Order: sequence, then structure tokens, then C-alpha cells
Amino acid sequence: MNLHIAVLSGDGIGPEVTSQSIKILTAIAEKYQHTFTFENALVGAIAIDETGNPLPEKTLDLCLDADAVLFGAIGDPKYDNDPSAKVRPEQGLLALRKALGLFANIRPVKAYDTLLDKSPLKKHIIQDTDIVIYRELTGGIYFGKKTLSEDGTKASDLCEYSRGEIERVAHLAFKAAQGRRNKLTLVDKANVLETSRLWRKVVTAMASHYPDVALDFLFVDNAAMQMVLNPSQFDVILTENMFGDIISDEASVIGGSIGLLASASIGSKYALFEPIHGSYPQATGKGIANPVASILSAAMLLDHFGLSEEAETVRSAVEHTINLEICTPDLNKDGGYSTENVGTFIEEFI
Amino acid sequence: MNLHIAVLSGDGIGPEVTSQSIKILTAIAEKYQHTFTFENALVGAIAIDETGNPLPEKTLDLCLDADAVLFGAIGDPKYDNDPSAKVRPEQGLLALRKALGLFANIRPVKAYDTLLDKSPLKKHIIQDTDIVIYRELTGGIYFGKKTLSEDGTKASDLCEYSRGEIERVAHLAFKAAQGRRNKLTLVDKANVLETSRLWRKVVTAMASHYPDVALDFLFVDNAAMQMVLNPSQFDVILTENMFGDIISDEASVIGGSIGLLASASIGSKYALFEPIHGSYPQATGKGIANPVASILSAAMLLDHFGLSEEAETVRSAVEHTINLEICTPDLNKDGGYSTENVGTFIEEFI
Ligand SMILES: CC(C)[C@H](C(=O)O)[C@@H](O)C(=O)O
Ligand SMILES: CC(C)[C@H](C(=O)O)[C@@H](O)C(=O)O
Repeated sequence: MNLHIAVLSGDGIGPEVTSQSIKILTAIAEKYQHTFTFENALVGAIAIDETGNPLPEKTLDLCLDADAVLFGAIGDPKYDNDPSAKVRPEQGLLALRKALGLFANIRPVKAYDTLLDKSPLKKHIIQDTDIVIYRELTGGIYFGKKTLSEDGTKASDLCEYSRGEIERVAHLAFKAAQGRRNKLTLVDKANVLETSRLWRKVVTAMASHYPDVALDFLFVDNAAMQMVLNPSQFDVILTENMFGDIISDEASVIGGSIGLLASASIGSKYALFEPIHGSYPQATGKGIANPVASILSAAMLLDHFGLSEEAETVRSAVEHTINLEICTPDLNKDGGYSTENVGTFIEEFI
Repeated sequence: MNLHIAVLSGDGIGPEVTSQSIKILTAIAEKYQHTFTFENALVGAIAIDETGNPLPEKTLDLCLDADAVLFGAIGDPKYDNDPSAKVRPEQGLLALRKALGLFANIRPVKAYDTLLDKSPLKKHIIQDTDIVIYRELTGGIYFGKKTLSEDGTKASDLCEYSRGEIERVAHLAFKAAQGRRNKLTLVDKANVLETSRLWRKVVTAMASHYPDVALDFLFVDNAAMQMVLNPSQFDVILTENMFGDIISDEASVIGGSIGLLASASIGSKYALFEPIHGSYPQATGKGIANPVASILSAAMLLDHFGLSEEAETVRSAVEHTINLEICTPDLNKDGGYSTENVGTFIEEFI
């Protein structure tokens, strides 16, 4: 297979981890005789520094032309504490999601047996946890109208949803549940929000097309508790953009390191693959960033193009290194391998 | 002191736990020679059943006349799964918060030493956790304009904040930090939301009036992670309505049982005291509901009126019973005492 992959490695540790996934994808291409070509482009704070724009036109054009996007990370503390900055790195990612129509963000969360000890949660709580979160990614309060009064004393953000926006991501979540343990939990705040009541109504109506899937509902505040109290109760979780941001980051703690968690953002035409960790500025350039999340995102990319055997090869190489405790310092305090080391071990297992 | 207390015990386990706090407040009144009078009124699902209105006028009038409100719980599953219900129990609570101007919801979260084992989190993670959350309670997306299109396919919720709304709750949070460990963390999503950027701007500007308080910022997704990874890093947390709902329920897990957590909702004129657990319909009438959260809410009521010694007496009586493992089944699986038993033990220690 020929794949042309746009590489947007972005800020902070983004470039370090992304270069490891490129190494892995290159090894896979060689082993299975595919042709993967990679083309770099700027995004985020680094793109602002160089062009003034967090998503330069050239970058967007490349993404629109490519078969898939491999994304690193975005964000720089110098923008976070400046509420009046007009341009910010995150706008690049949000604009890209919108422009590529990436309406579904898919985040698997799994407890690796060998890492059970690293989790802040007790072993018996997280054992057997295996969740996939489907987060709506191009709607809701992220993209609704924002206002700031002229005198700067009043602000607003509008959260909007339409039936169509809910259905397209919900279909993916129902189908995912069919391929797993047949359980779908909609997380919302239907006792307060009109948009949540629409989600509940639309998803309930769809359930009759998926009679083999057991659908249930959880208020987001309760979901935030249940995720810590008893995460193994969940199979597939479906939720709107803002709640998905919070719940999936909370869930990322289960496995012992956010450095393990991959995501795919997909639409009807384009797809982007991204570790869920951020730019982690404190770690930049130190060689301590965990490349596994990025490498597993590359495995999701392979899956997306039907290359399941290749994806499985990557995943078992990753598990192998984890079982041997060939891990960066987030998971292996004494010693710990470098970002590059871990990438190379995984490459060699392939 | 004379206090006239409106008792709105509400739905589910509300009446059972509230009757225990009344018992405790009565014991305190006797011991310290105060006169506390209690007057009941309907709220929530039970009020809908009897009057068609989740907050009957009579109830609101009583609250406006009383010195304080002792609240039980609200909610009934029959409304949750009916997205088109016109009247719902939660409206009673939201309307009451608004009518009484209860703009600050205050939730202390503490890890009791003797209960460290009950938490889903590991001991070393939660040890020394002592947090107070200040959640804005009468603004944001809870109270902004809601729309549903005529054909029922589009919905919206508006999140709005003004400088004044932010300042009044932020002042309370800064002052609380001054009386504690001098640290205040604002939780927001300033990289995406205009309202969050206003929060960050307003709170930053206020910080110069509280030079002894160290102010920092955390995005809500990161906060949801940090609450599980390292909760003892927090002292006072300040946040808007929706994020506060999620983060404080998540935090409630730390202590081992949500049945321990009290809250005060205060405004410039009125105050309401409420356990943070909900109506817990599955437990209703079984005598297994933990009365401690409600009793500790009563202690917050005493504090509110400057009766610190009395409040301390209640709190140490509660700690005493917990140390002796005189607990309901949520904390004491083998055997376990009834709601009534636990209340009576606490009463006797007073
Ligand atoms: C960087 C930020 C805008 C983004 C989001 O909130 O969506 C991130 O937290 C994520 O989850 O991908
Ligand atoms: C019952 C519900 C409307 C309420 C809220 O979301 O505020 C509850 O969850 C709470 O936190 O007091």
C-alpha cells in the first residue's frame, strides 16, 4: 500500500515522540513492503513563531492532500497565562479538526497487567479495564459563538448541537460496541442542559437499530466518579466535546501513564492520529518523553487503512518492551530508557 | 442563639439522612442552650407529585423567611430517562439556588486516616489530602439561555459570566486560602473558552489584593487528571459552575465514600447546607444511607453562624464514630450499622 502521511509534530515533546513513530512506520513499511512517505509541516506555537499563524495555509493544504495526518502535540505556556493573546497554538488544532471534519475522537484506555502497580488506583479497581471513548470533536461549546463585551467585563460561549452531529459519531460508537462487549454508555448532563437532552433523545432513538447493544446513561458528574470507583464497568463511552475532553483525560490516569494513550480523530474523509498527552514543555529536549502513545497512534493509523496485521505487530512489539520494562522514566524510575532507546527497541522487535 | 431552619429533605434517601442531622442539631441546641426550630417543606420529585411544582411557592417563602436551609437530596430516575419531561426535580434545586442568590458552593474534601483503605486510590496518593472547592453556583451554562428548535433537531445552551459574578465567589476563595495553606488554583479551559479567559483575567487582577496567596491555573482536563494523580497538591480550588460539578464529584471519591461529604451554598443573604450525594434511589428506605455527609453539612451550618465550638463538637463526634468503625455498609461491609444507629451514636458522643 502507498500512504502519503502529513507529519505535524508541533510543540514541546511533539517532535521527539513523532520521530519515533516515523521510525516504527518505516520499519513496518519495510517488513510488509508498503511505501509510506512522510512530509513535515508546521502547526501550533512553532508555526506562530515562524509564520504568525498556528495553522499555516501550506500545512492545511498538505493535510487535505495527504492520506492521513500524524500529529505530535500543541501548546506553549507563554500563551496560557495571557488571556488576551489574539493568536494561540490551540487554535491551530481546533481549526484543523474543523477543516478536516474530524468529528469523532477515539481514545482506547486499557490497563496493562505489568503496569498495574504504576497506577494511582488500586489493582483490584483497574484490573480488566478496557474502555474506548468516543468524543464528539467538531461541535459543542468548542466551536459555538464566543463573545466578549467591549468593556471586557462579560463573556459568553455557546454550546450547540444538531441531530446530524450527534448521529454520525453515535453510529461509530454503536458499531464499536458491537465489535466489543456490546455496551454503550452515553455521558451527558441531561438534568440541566438542553443539548444533553437532545443527545439523549437522538441516541435513544438510534438504539433500536442496534438491538444487540445495551445502552445506558450517566450524568457527567457521576461518570467522573465512576471512572475512578469502578472503571471496568465501562465498555464504549459516547459523549460530547467538552465532557469528552475531561472524562478521557481523567481516564488516562488508569493505565499508569498518560504516555501510553493513543487517539484517532476521524471524519468521513480525513483522519488524524495523535497521542493524547500534550506538549509537556518541562520535558522537552531531555529525551525522557514516552514515545509509546505516539507509536500506538501510528498503530491506529495502520488499523484505519485495514492493515490490521501490521497494527497488531506494532502493538505486540510495544507490549513486549513494556513487559521487559524497557520504559521511559515515567514508568521506570530507576534507570529508565530514553525516548530514542524505547523507539529503537520497539523497532527491533518488529 | 435562636435559629429558624427550613428543612427541605426532598427525595430518595434525603429524608432519612436529614432526620439524623436534625437529631444532632437538637442535641447541640440542648447542650449549648440554643433554640433551633425546624420547619419542613416540599422540594423535588416529591413536590412535583404533590403540587406539580418542584419548588412550591410555600417552600420558597419558608426559605426566604428562615435563617438557613437544611437540604436533603433531589432527583428521581423516572425523570432522567424522559428527555422531554417539562417539569423535573432538579429545577427545584436550581431555582432555589437562584432565588436565594447562593453563588458559592463550598465543598471540603478530606482523607480520613482510618478510612484510607476504603478509597479506590492508593494510600500514598491520598494521604494528607485536604482540599476545599469553591464552585460558582448561580451562573454559567446552568442558567444561560437554552433553546430547542421547533422540529426538535437542534439545541443550545449558553454559558455566560460577568466580572461581578466571578469576583464575589473568588473573594471567598482567596479568603479561604488565607485561612489555610495560602494556595489557590483556578480551574478553567482558557485555551478554548472566552468565559474561561475572563475568569483568568479577573482572578489574576484580584490576586494583588491577596499577596500572601499563591495563585495558579489548571486546565480542567489536566485538573481531572491531577485530582487522581496527586490530590494533596491542592489547597483551595476555584472554578465555574459546570467544571465544579464534575471536579468536585470526582474529588468526592478520594475519601472512600461520597457519603462523607458535606457542602455549604452561600450568598450574601442566605445559606443552604446539603450533603453532596444525591437521592440514591436504590438505597431508599433500607436504612443503609450514610448520614455523615448530612450531619457534617449541619456542622457547616453551625460554623456559618459563628458557632465554631458547636461545629467542632459535631465533627469530633463524627470522627469518633468513624474511628470506632461505627459506619453504614458503604464503609463497613461486615455488619455495618443502620443510618439511625450511626446518628444515635454521634448524638450520644455529643
Ligand atoms: C489542546 C486542547 C485545545 C485540546 C482540547 O481541549 O480538545 C486537548 O486538550 C485535547 O483533548 O486534544
Ligand atoms: C442535581 C444537579 C442539578 C446538581 C448540579 O449539577 O448542580 C448536583 O449534581 C449538584 O452538584 O448539586
